[in-house]
Amino acid sequence: MRDAIKNLVSRPKVVIVGGGFGGLYAAKALASAPVAVTLVDRKNHHTFQPLLYQVASAVLSPGQIASPLRSILHGARNVEVILGEVTGFNVGARRVLLKDGSELQYDYLIVAAGARHSYFGHDGWQRNAPGLKTVEDAVEIRRRILLAFEVAEREAYLTGSHRPLNFAIIGGGPTGVELAGAIAGIAREVLGRDFKAIDTRQARVMLFEGNPRVLRTYPEDLSRKAEKQLQELGVEVRTNSRVTAVEDGRIKVGEEWIETSVVLWATGVFASPLGKALAAQAAGVEVDKSGRVSVSPDLSLPGRREIFVIGDLASLKDADGKLVPGLAAAAMQEGRAVAANILRDLRGEERLPFRYWDKGNMATIGRNRAVAQVGSWHMSGYFAWLMWALVHALLLSGFRNRLMVMREWVWAYFTHSRSARLITGDTDVPTRQPRQVEVDVRPETDARGMLESRVVVS
Amino acid sequence: MRDAIKNLVSRPKVVIVGGGFGGLYAAKALASAPVAVTLVDRKNHHTFQPLLYQVASAVLSPGQIASPLRSILHGARNVEVILGEVTGFNVGARRVLLKDGSELQYDYLIVAAGARHSYFGHDGWQRNAPGLKTVEDAVEIRRRILLAFEVAEREAYLTGSHRPLNFAIIGGGPTGVELAGAIAGIAREVLGRDFKAIDTRQARVMLFEGNPRVLRTYPEDLSRKAEKQLQELGVEVRTNSRVTAVEDGRIKVGEEWIETSVVLWATGVFASPLGKALAAQAAGVEVDKSGRVSVSPDLSLPGRREIFVIGDLASLKDADGKLVPGLAAAAMQEGRAVAANILRDLRGEERLPFRYWDKGNMATIGRNRAVAQVGSWHMSGYFAWLMWALVHALLLSGFRNRLMVMREWVWAYFTHSRSARLITGDTDVPTRQPRQVEVDVRPETDARGMLESRVVVS
Repeated sequence: MRDAIKNLVSRPKVVIVGGGFGGLYAAKALASAPVAVTLVDRKNHHTFQPLLYQVASAVLSPGQIASPLRSILHGARNVEVILGEVTGFNVGARRVLLKDGSELQYDYLIVAAGARHSYFGHDGWQRNAPGLKTVEDAVEIRRRILLAFEVAEREAYLTGSHRPLNFAIIGGGPTGVELAGAIAGIAREVLGRDFKAIDTRQARVMLFEGNPRVLRTYPEDLSRKAEKQLQELGVEVRTNSRVTAVEDGRIKVGEEWIETSVVLWATGVFASPLGKALAAQAAGVEVDKSGRVSVSPDLSLPGRREIFVIGDLASLKDADGKLVPGLAAAAMQEGRAVAANILRDLRGEERLPFRYWDKGNMATIGRNRAVAQVGSWHMSGYFAWLMWALVHALLLSGFRNRLMVMREWVWAYFTHSRSARLITGDTDVPTRQPRQVEVDVRPETDARGMLESRVVVS
Repeated sequence: MRDAIKNLVSRPKVVIVGGGFGGLYAAKALASAPVAVTLVDRKNHHTFQPLLYQVASAVLSPGQIASPLRSILHGARNVEVILGEVTGFNVGARRVLLKDGSELQYDYLIVAAGARHSYFGHDGWQRNAPGLKTVEDAVEIRRRILLAFEVAEREAYLTGSHRPLNFAIIGGGPTGVELAGAIAGIAREVLGRDFKAIDTRQARVMLFEGNPRVLRTYPEDLSRKAEKQLQELGVEVRTNSRVTAVEDGRIKVGEEWIETSVVLWATGVFASPLGKALAAQAAGVEVDKSGRVSVSPDLSLPGRREIFVIGDLASLKDADGKLVPGLAAAAMQEGRAVAANILRDLRGEERLPFRYWDKGNMATIGRNRAVAQVGSWHMSGYFAWLMWALVHALLLSGFRNRLMVMREWVWAYFTHSRSARLITGDTDVPTRQPRQVEVDVRPETDARGMLESRVVVS
């Protein structure tokens, strides 16, 4: 091991910032190549983001969609993984700055730091409307969803009625559509039999989209089909609806206030601040309004051939003139492309411009439902859903996780159950209006089928 | 469903506080009985505590050892589960007080609120030496263990050496022994191949026990065997060692200060404050120095036949004159026994005193090693370990979890790998002493086999 590391010292140093799809696939493509690679990430794991909503909706456990970068790359002897937070760069000296004050020198730098949510200047909304980008986000969203049902059950049991169970998802892109379908599925198919005082099917799931249709990057017929499938699941789809305020327990849509149990944020992406940090050091580099860095056709920084920017942090019209979308598939292809161009450099060959291979788009909408577009081929419903499941299981990195996830899906499919329904963290939500002493027990049900207090409360 | 609930109203009300082994088994034993049961817990899940250390050591995921109480009990139509925190009782009015101000009335009350760690008055130690009682505790301990290796790797990579990787476990009972064995196993067998700059086998695992031997509730020969097996795994066992201070990055043992990366607390149990709350309302009830409530032979509160206290919160010499130990098996038996006595009351029969059936004791010590005592039969080594695995898999509640856990164990056994190695939460630990600018790269290794900086740091 030590000898192997010694041998690396004379090799060109490639530093990769970020272990998402872009960074990970660049590192994989450089494994065994005559370079010494250092991959830096704030997390110890790669997260399979397309399945994060399944953790949020209690289908999968975090460990099933995230693997330690160190184990994914353990066979790559020329790749070192370090856990650390990159705070900036010294482009002139070719150094990456880490939060703890140390620095990493590079010959080539690949910045794949991704994006987070943007609250369009309303950062205060984050507390009441979390977004879904990390495993921690998913566990927090799962906590909120499951806790909402628990609090309603307690309230119905203790006071005879409960606040409306309203789930609001803001943003009708793939994440919003998938979350809305998943929550409707939980309420209708999974939790019902476990709750005795509430009828979980009465939960309202509302999806708000500012544009005239959901999935607006998809062909229009698929948007319509997705909307229809959501409605079949009981989701209220509200297009042309702008959320103008998010507060504790309610949101404002246009002029209307809506009481909410859980609000989720599935819109607004803003690239990592490392994009701006790079641009500040390199003349002529542009950053767009979403924080993305405009890159040259080979994904390098204009005027800085040794620096590449890929994934959600990059903005590029590819060789065919199409804007490369912010998808996992695009980031993977970019990671591989920059690795190939670095190796071309080392062999003294010409770099190739990046060409995005559009493999299509798919989004699931609960059980048995999905929409998919592959070239001019549009699909929806059961077959699209089967294809979605197959493709995503195949893409999951790691033979092990793939098997576990497929097993979990088969189980959930046939039993209508969920195996990851833990609430961890804070569970302290007050019951509304505990009643003052009542002397006796009156078994009655109200109009919504809720149990009147069968215990005396005071 | 609603009809079923109406039918319950005229039934005697049994309130169970706590969904651990005692409370859960009482609820299970009362399923289908002519009573209306309400089980209250602060968590939505039952935790299989004997396997918590396997979550802490990244073998199992939280979802594999914890199941929602609501789903475990979903077939029990006369059992309602509510998520809530009990703050006290009004024994005269037969009411349980919840944190949100509401109350639950009972005809019978079963208090099974368990125990937490005690820091012997040094509550400040908790921050630096977390204990292991909940899923959240286990995930936090896992985070600290894995992060310690990551920080050492980064430090070795960036500065050429790293602070000693010292794991200190305070308390040589079953939890301490299992944690020490598991950490030694991770360091020696699991992580080695994934880390390139450090030699994880150099990690020191120290187990401190104030008494002359580990596992002091076990027969002496098994204590000696456990100590020997720990030493084979490389654990330094320090008996007769009292920890007198716990600070950030170091502990004091007797007069010696020891530098530490991770400190875990596996000693000192103190019963839930609900024991004292009960005693304050009932004349003649005693609470011992560990906060446990002395109960009558039928596990009821002296002078309050309608209140039972079971599990770690209860102190009882059983009908054979033996002190009932604080074990999962004992709590289960107590839960079933009070359920049976309640049903005897309802049928007008005499109550029976509780009799503990001692099924024995077992603790694992890493892979292939364990000690077990069943009556006068003492075992250690591989066979004891196999028996441990079989018994614990069988005890796991839920057909599903049992299969998943066994699969996970088989996988981990044959591949020497771990599937639950996620670090979630904070990862921001500074690297020690980042060096000031060095001009070149010097590949050298120091005495402990650590890599000298192969990157320039400043």
